[in-house]
Amino acid sequence: IQTKFPTMGTTIFTVMSALAAEKNAVNLGQGFPDFDCDPKLVDGVTEAMRKGLNQYPPMPGVPVLREAIAAKVETLYGRKYDPASEITVTAGATQAIITAILAIVKPGDEVIVLEPCYDSYVPNIELAGGKVVRVPLVPHSFRPDFAKIAAALSPRTRAILVNSPHNPSATVWTREEMLQLQDLLAPTDVFVISDEVYEHMVFDGQQHQSAARFPGLAARSLIVSSFGKTYHVTGWKIGYVAAPAALTAEFRKVHQFNVFTVNTPMQYGLASYMASPEPYLQLPAFYQRKRDLFREGLARTRFELLPSQGSYFQCVDISKVSDLGEADFCKWLTSEIGVAAIPLSAFYGDGFDQRVVRFCFAKKDETLQTALDRLAKL
Amino acid sequence: IQTKFPTMGTTIFTVMSALAAEKNAVNLGQGFPDFDCDPKLVDGVTEAMRKGLNQYPPMPGVPVLREAIAAKVETLYGRKYDPASEITVTAGATQAIITAILAIVKPGDEVIVLEPCYDSYVPNIELAGGKVVRVPLVPHSFRPDFAKIAAALSPRTRAILVNSPHNPSATVWTREEMLQLQDLLAPTDVFVISDEVYEHMVFDGQQHQSAARFPGLAARSLIVSSFGKTYHVTGWKIGYVAAPAALTAEFRKVHQFNVFTVNTPMQYGLASYMASPEPYLQLPAFYQRKRDLFREGLARTRFELLPSQGSYFQCVDISKVSDLGEADFCKWLTSEIGVAAIPLSAFYGDGFDQRVVRFCFAKKDETLQTALDRLAKL
Ligand SMILES: CSCCC(=O)C(=O)O
Ligand SMILES: CSCCC(=O)C(=O)O
Repeated sequence: IQTKFPTMGTTIFTVMSALAAEKNAVNLGQGFPDFDCDPKLVDGVTEAMRKGLNQYPPMPGVPVLREAIAAKVETLYGRKYDPASEITVTAGATQAIITAILAIVKPGDEVIVLEPCYDSYVPNIELAGGKVVRVPLVPHSFRPDFAKIAAALSPRTRAILVNSPHNPSATVWTREEMLQLQDLLAPTDVFVISDEVYEHMVFDGQQHQSAARFPGLAARSLIVSSFGKTYHVTGWKIGYVAAPAALTAEFRKVHQFNVFTVNTPMQYGLASYMASPEPYLQLPAFYQRKRDLFREGLARTRFELLPSQGSYFQCVDISKVSDLGEADFCKWLTSEIGVAAIPLSAFYGDGFDQRVVRFCFAKKDETLQTALDRLAKL
Repeated sequence: IQTKFPTMGTTIFTVMSALAAEKNAVNLGQGFPDFDCDPKLVDGVTEAMRKGLNQYPPMPGVPVLREAIAAKVETLYGRKYDPASEITVTAGATQAIITAILAIVKPGDEVIVLEPCYDSYVPNIELAGGKVVRVPLVPHSFRPDFAKIAAALSPRTRAILVNSPHNPSATVWTREEMLQLQDLLAPTDVFVISDEVYEHMVFDGQQHQSAARFPGLAARSLIVSSFGKTYHVTGWKIGYVAAPAALTAEFRKVHQFNVFTVNTPMQYGLASYMASPEPYLQLPAFYQRKRDLFREGLARTRFELLPSQGSYFQCVDISKVSDLGEADFCKWLTSEIGVAAIPLSAFYGDGFDQRVVRFCFAKKDETLQTALDRLAKL
């Protein structure tokens, strides 16, 4: 049949997870925990199902969950979102992002992405008929280059996608960088889609600089987050969007005709679980320990370790280990060494190869140890 | 802010459910049961969560569920779909339909809808940049008019959306009508998006004529169904698409960048529940009894009853009851009589008003009785 997407392949995460399964490799590729969530969270969902909360929730999400989200955002970032008109529960962050893009990007609009970026952004923009304007983060350091971003802005720029803590690079934007973004956009009408799904995984005492903290950004931002990352339930596919009422209204116009609404008992389970902030307050320490354990092991290899300031990813430069390109290296590592990783080239439209690959350390200590034992052979 | 959708409102189902709640009316508007699902289904999901099946499933869905779906479709409709390459689990039928449309409709392509039609179809086509070609079903009888469909076909027609059992009219296409559609499309490349979410609710011994039964249709069809309708869990938001491998490949290109994947424990729960066909085999008798109970009561009013051959809807002509237009009548009925209904005009692009409104009878007998008591006042 005549395809609409002649060059589109399968997402790298699916490809590498399938290869990892086939080769019986330790899967440090696709980002998800191999340990379980808190049984209390499961109990909350079960209770909701047993209470008969199994029919359509209101289109933007169940009120108690929207209230819990608004309360959390206000406590952490000091901005009050109205749960009724400014918070929408989504079927995960990926669905939140495509919905945001379809809601605001018209055919011909330009949308800036900072590469490397999550692999759904660009196809999402293209589906909306938008023109993708790719701006590289500084290679290897992955800091934003504001001169380049400024140069990419045009009267046709409709939106910019930003993401901190950053997937795949594990950098975290500083307060100064967020302020620079705010200043840069101040004279424009550009919307910000701020992908903050790793908001609760920031290390070494640094703070997550949510767009919600910056009034000039918050007023133009759709902030996207995910319960899957925060509560170790990536398979539940629940996320949310916080945005000013006028932007939320636009978002919901598309949301109602995309998934319409999101799993009811899971929403209730999450709402009761959110009553306690402990789980997300403990998350930085929880993941920082894993990061340190993993980095200590990697330090004994010839990989060059890049910083991991946030998220559950660790990038390494492979130059001293192999002559292969990133993609071939990842295939080889999966097949021959038994550890799956993700090539950063998958996050660039032109497949730019800087000899860096990404590992996910959201794994049991034993899993990380097995991977490290295998990597020690390199 | 400058809106992309200046004329788009909120879906009628949300609007009427909100009004019903506000007025404390019996909600026979939005289609969902007010009784609970089988506790066994809940147990299956709980078991999956407790087993730790809480992380990302494979992008197209968990294999056991795809196998169960393929087995069901083969048993009922005699067509074998390959679970690996021809079945995709979706976040409900609405998400399946938008994904199908985004996957196959290019800007400028024409897409035929048969009005009245579900209110997401038209915005979905417009989001894809497609041109909506509206063809009315015969007013009041809601049968397809093949001369009109033939006249609407053009070299730019990319797809046609069909829906049987039909929401809102409750008609069920006959084998002859499906054969006529098959013949009509035979010389074309037109794809069919076949919305069959009410497939298991067909009454009076009639059979559901799935596109899967007709080789010439199946080869060009994305068949959409829903577990929410079938198993009384509209809030779980799980559906699926069955389509030949080449079409499924196109579908998945968009699916992976829309929701990526669907709630894992719910998928496992549904898969084990599907091991027994009883629940969906008993559904026609279950709903036919409710339909008959509801119709008997309505027969005592001055509403003119239209046929209800399938789905969980019953349409009535309001001409002898009121001079109001459909939309105003539904508001009045909700506010003053305490029973919510849906105006059929909400399913027409031009708001065509034929004095017909839709009730949902997927309700406890007591609920239907309360509604009938109130309607008896008319
Ligand atoms: C949606 S699958 C990919 C998970 C993820 O966010 C990642 O590995 O980057
Ligand atoms: C997605 S909410 C609407 C439910 C439904 O299918 C209907 O009432 O027609």
